[in-house]
Amino acid sequence: MTELPTTECTDHPAPAEEVLAEYLHARAGAFLRALPLAVGEAGSRTGSLPSGGGSQAVAGGTGELLRCVRRIGGALHTFAPVFEPVWAEETRTELRWLSGLLAQEPGYVRRSARLLAAVDSLSETDPGRAGMLAGHAGAPKARALMERQLTLARTRAHTTLLQELRSARLHALADRMTLLAGEVPMLPEAAGALRPQVATALGLLAEGAAALPPVRTPYGGEGLHRLGAVPVQSATRVDADLVLAADDAPWHRVRILVKRARYALEVCGASLAELDGIDRVLDRHQEAADAAVTVSSAARTPRITPATAYVLGVVHADQRLEVEAARYAFGHQWPTLQHHGWHAWASC
Amino acid sequence: MTELPTTECTDHPAPAEEVLAEYLHARAGAFLRALPLAVGEAGSRTGSLPSGGGSQAVAGGTGELLRCVRRIGGALHTFAPVFEPVWAEETRTELRWLSGLLAQEPGYVRRSARLLAAVDSLSETDPGRAGMLAGHAGAPKARALMERQLTLARTRAHTTLLQELRSARLHALADRMTLLAGEVPMLPEAAGALRPQVATALGLLAEGAAALPPVRTPYGGEGLHRLGAVPVQSATRVDADLVLAADDAPWHRVRILVKRARYALEVCGASLAELDGIDRVLDRHQEAADAAVTVSSAARTPRITPATAYVLGVVHADQRLEVEAARYAFGHQWPTLQHHGWHAWASC
Repeated sequence: MTELPTTECTDHPAPAEEVLAEYLHARAGAFLRALPLAVGEAGSRTGSLPSGGGSQAVAGGTGELLRCVRRIGGALHTFAPVFEPVWAEETRTELRWLSGLLAQEPGYVRRSARLLAAVDSLSETDPGRAGMLAGHAGAPKARALMERQLTLARTRAHTTLLQELRSARLHALADRMTLLAGEVPMLPEAAGALRPQVATALGLLAEGAAALPPVRTPYGGEGLHRLGAVPVQSATRVDADLVLAADDAPWHRVRILVKRARYALEVCGASLAELDGIDRVLDRHQEAADAAVTVSSAARTPRITPATAYVLGVVHADQRLEVEAARYAFGHQWPTLQHHGWHAWASC
Repeated sequence: MTELPTTECTDHPAPAEEVLAEYLHARAGAFLRALPLAVGEAGSRTGSLPSGGGSQAVAGGTGELLRCVRRIGGALHTFAPVFEPVWAEETRTELRWLSGLLAQEPGYVRRSARLLAAVDSLSETDPGRAGMLAGHAGAPKARALMERQLTLARTRAHTTLLQELRSARLHALADRMTLLAGEVPMLPEAAGALRPQVATALGLLAEGAAALPPVRTPYGGEGLHRLGAVPVQSATRVDADLVLAADDAPWHRVRILVKRARYALEVCGASLAELDGIDRVLDRHQEAADAAVTVSSAARTPRITPATAYVLGVVHADQRLEVEAARYAFGHQWPTLQHHGWHAWASC
């Protein structure tokens, strides 16, 4: 489903560069309003972000700031030929830095919620909803271990965020946003349509999706044994983390292309519900993959009991199954996007 | 696909009791021929059954003996009203005992092959086929532990088999089979058709399959967390083994009904390829469920390392995924049996 674009995408009279500039003015303004809120939030809490919520649910100011950062960065990337190149490149680098910084703490909060929910569900003892680790002695210990390690990681991320929010680097970026809120450094000769660049972003996404390995049949008779044909460098020592990272990498790349396509459409005032759905699926893919890495690291903690390690093995497999589930969901949703959403966009 | 029945099922002139008696004579004769071979085999090997092969692949004489035992027991059950009841009940008890005895050792061989293949596949390091435990330090240890424990169990089963094959109890059963090879103790008034009893066996199977919990969607968004609504006795302490056993029980019951239906059709000289396929799927279900129990017991071995326990956790989850895969395959194959195979049988 496509909201009717309100810009030149539907032969709106506003010229392309004006639409883009307005979009960036608005996002930069929002950035500047959200920044002090985010700084206040970070200062007032001590690593006690509320857990739960969707994968995009980040508290008030911090969440809004992150949303602005990602969208401005996306627009600078997708419509790159329009901008003064040195300024755009520098700004994108700084936005990537801030985006990584802001995303870390809520990422740990979500990962903690995901893994604790998984172990709780696996060890659930209620009749009728019991899990395959019901009553297992290792479950409470594994839970406590994961909670402790993720709380520690979250606290560290919070401390780093607090420091960096007061840094000269952040002030310089805020100055760039102040400039952007008033004037977008565009190339004088860069006037033109937005539509070709949006089409390029969608085309890159389609290429990335087409290059993904075929989605494995559910229960293809191989259980969790194989991870498909992962072309790992044969010269390097093959270990599990390397194998899983190689297996996940093309999906993570497509996730970035999905976000870029979403933000590019947003500049034109358009959106595709199917694309938003796929974005959520690939967020889930990324989060389950990251959670699996956390679990396998936790299992390498010295002096844990075998019972704890056993539960972590089950939780690891469970998260890898979530990764497979997300790919399977992608395999179902992608054709719908291509048939309906894409078509709606192309005809608007 | 149904082979054309060569008996009264297609209005063949032979009366039902004659068809049944001939079938039992032939199976009892085969029993008596296979018994000395099985005894010789058991005596000559010392727990070194070849591993691998299909779930029904059991070596020469022992395998043939087991096939006869199951078929005679199945016929005595399905066509019970025809037989002298005390004799039939006693014979069935003894056949069940021998069936359990004969199945144990090959069962451990298959379980060992299954679990070692699983851990090998999970820890495979070949580029392009690497597993999620590639290079994991715990994998060789977990492999050695499972192999050691299953070899021990197999050796014990072998010793028991050797003893019992020389027991008075077995000689008494052989005497019963000698009787059966010449004369089937039927009730004088029991003449009648076989078809209604075969229909009853198929009907019980259909009822059992209809009462199964709905097959869970693959990747239903719950990973391995939940095992569906298992009505575990709330009074008892809920533990994982109990939960899994309760979850598996209805499937194990349907597996027995499938085998009875297969053997009942066989008496009439008929077979349904779809039913054979479902039998194999439910064998796989049973074997994966049993293998998962073995893995979780192995993880309770004192003094194992956390790395070993971790790998066992992953292997346990992998086997439970195989259980789910078998249920999913059942959910696909059952409707085909009902639409095609069933119809072919009903019209024959």
